[in-house]
Amino acid sequence: MASRTFSERLRAIQQAKQTVLCVGLDPDPARLPLHLAQTHTLPEAVVAFNTAIIDATAGHACAFKLNFAFYEALGRSGWDVLDATIRQIPEDVLVIADAKRGDIGNSARFYAEAIFTGLRCDACTVAPYMGRDAVEPFLRIEGKAAFVLARTSNPGARDFQERLCDGEPLYRHVARQVAAWASEAPGDGGLVVGATSPEALRALRVLCPTLPFLIPGVGAQGGDPQQVMAAAATADGPVLVNSSRQILYAASGDDFAKAAREAADRLRRQLGMPG
Amino acid sequence: MASRTFSERLRAIQQAKQTVLCVGLDPDPARLPLHLAQTHTLPEAVVAFNTAIIDATAGHACAFKLNFAFYEALGRSGWDVLDATIRQIPEDVLVIADAKRGDIGNSARFYAEAIFTGLRCDACTVAPYMGRDAVEPFLRIEGKAAFVLARTSNPGARDFQERLCDGEPLYRHVARQVAAWASEAPGDGGLVVGATSPEALRALRVLCPTLPFLIPGVGAQGGDPQQVMAAAATADGPVLVNSSRQILYAASGDDFAKAAREAADRLRRQLGMPG
Repeated sequence: MASRTFSERLRAIQQAKQTVLCVGLDPDPARLPLHLAQTHTLPEAVVAFNTAIIDATAGHACAFKLNFAFYEALGRSGWDVLDATIRQIPEDVLVIADAKRGDIGNSARFYAEAIFTGLRCDACTVAPYMGRDAVEPFLRIEGKAAFVLARTSNPGARDFQERLCDGEPLYRHVARQVAAWASEAPGDGGLVVGATSPEALRALRVLCPTLPFLIPGVGAQGGDPQQVMAAAATADGPVLVNSSRQILYAASGDDFAKAAREAADRLRRQLGMPG
Repeated sequence: MASRTFSERLRAIQQAKQTVLCVGLDPDPARLPLHLAQTHTLPEAVVAFNTAIIDATAGHACAFKLNFAFYEALGRSGWDVLDATIRQIPEDVLVIADAKRGDIGNSARFYAEAIFTGLRCDACTVAPYMGRDAVEPFLRIEGKAAFVLARTSNPGARDFQERLCDGEPLYRHVARQVAAWASEAPGDGGLVVGATSPEALRALRVLCPTLPFLIPGVGAQGGDPQQVMAAAATADGPVLVNSSRQILYAASGDDFAKAAREAADRLRRQLGMPG
């Protein structure tokens, strides 16, 4: 599959498995099941937890998304835990590094290499504030993708992303630029658009009919699965709808993996497929 | 010194050592001195290089800035190299994590803890795009500081930072919000403003007369030291002027540390002190 674009691989996986669900592997040390936390070191407990979640939910997911904050918090073990987790992910699930990197070209190249080559991730989230030379190093490899933050799901999204520039919210300018940059690059561009703003989802789908959207914010943050699909999923416009806490912490005892599987399957069905 | 604010500590160090110079510890594996690269593993060579640069330049610097991209590129050794480097930095030089983090509150807290508590850094660079809840976790500790990207030094700064919102470039809105958020927080707020835009430096100093400015972009990126100081350094408005490549790679042979010391001393004198 190495010679295919990220979008082609995504489409094939979503069709074969009939799922747009992305499972967020964001292991909070304070919420690990007690029996794992008590019998392992913290890094081992996180790998064991992630492995059980991966095994339980991979059949229902088109992607796993790893938020790097939860791994960096493990200090010197963080990278090994990331690496060990990614090794557990089967071929038919894409791996998204939720690292929100954004730096000048010289530094961005090092970040991109660490994430795409070092950790073998298929995609990375990227912050747009520093502009084109901060984003392009993540668009240089065919088969990989950069999901650029457009309209995020958190309360602070209103502070700058919704400011009007030339009569349009900033996030629309970002989306238009990402589409333009990606059209000239070997890698794929995508957008991060929060489930908490259906208007932004609708407006951005019209503006960027074929870019893949990574959509966080259903479940714990309040976004509604059906509303999200109606606003953003089309036959040509793929979505990956992420859920983390609702699946990871569906139960806190020995049955956490089974509960996670059921939560993933339920959300997969609620989301359905576009069209 | 633990009960003093970041700005108080910065002022005391700058006065005592008569320097506004910040040295960027951005070790590019391709540019390490050959005798180090040939006799050590890469992580060991980086620590040896950084240690020599720290020993040679600490007397001329008020801060060291570590761009995390160069460490993350080392994979599983990255964190240990960061930690070992930071241990070499003497008490009278502040440590800035140039990590440009920006994520929702839940994740931002983990990043802030890893950087301020895990790695004991004094300050961190933060991306503003996600708004208040992405910045605030970095403003919660007295004695620490968040330097938020305002107008950066790279070409892509023009793509979004200079867009006019309500008649003003976006970076001015960011600066005004950072000043407001910092005024209500235990930690200090600061701004990242590139040396390559003297107008932005001047405009932001008028808007934020007392915030510390971290200023990259002199030397390799083209900013002029005297122009930067005239535009941004005042008796009440502190600056930290960063130089990386011009100092790290002043020479590439056995004499690299001596050459780095001379380059740091020369730039310190060119910069001078405000007022």
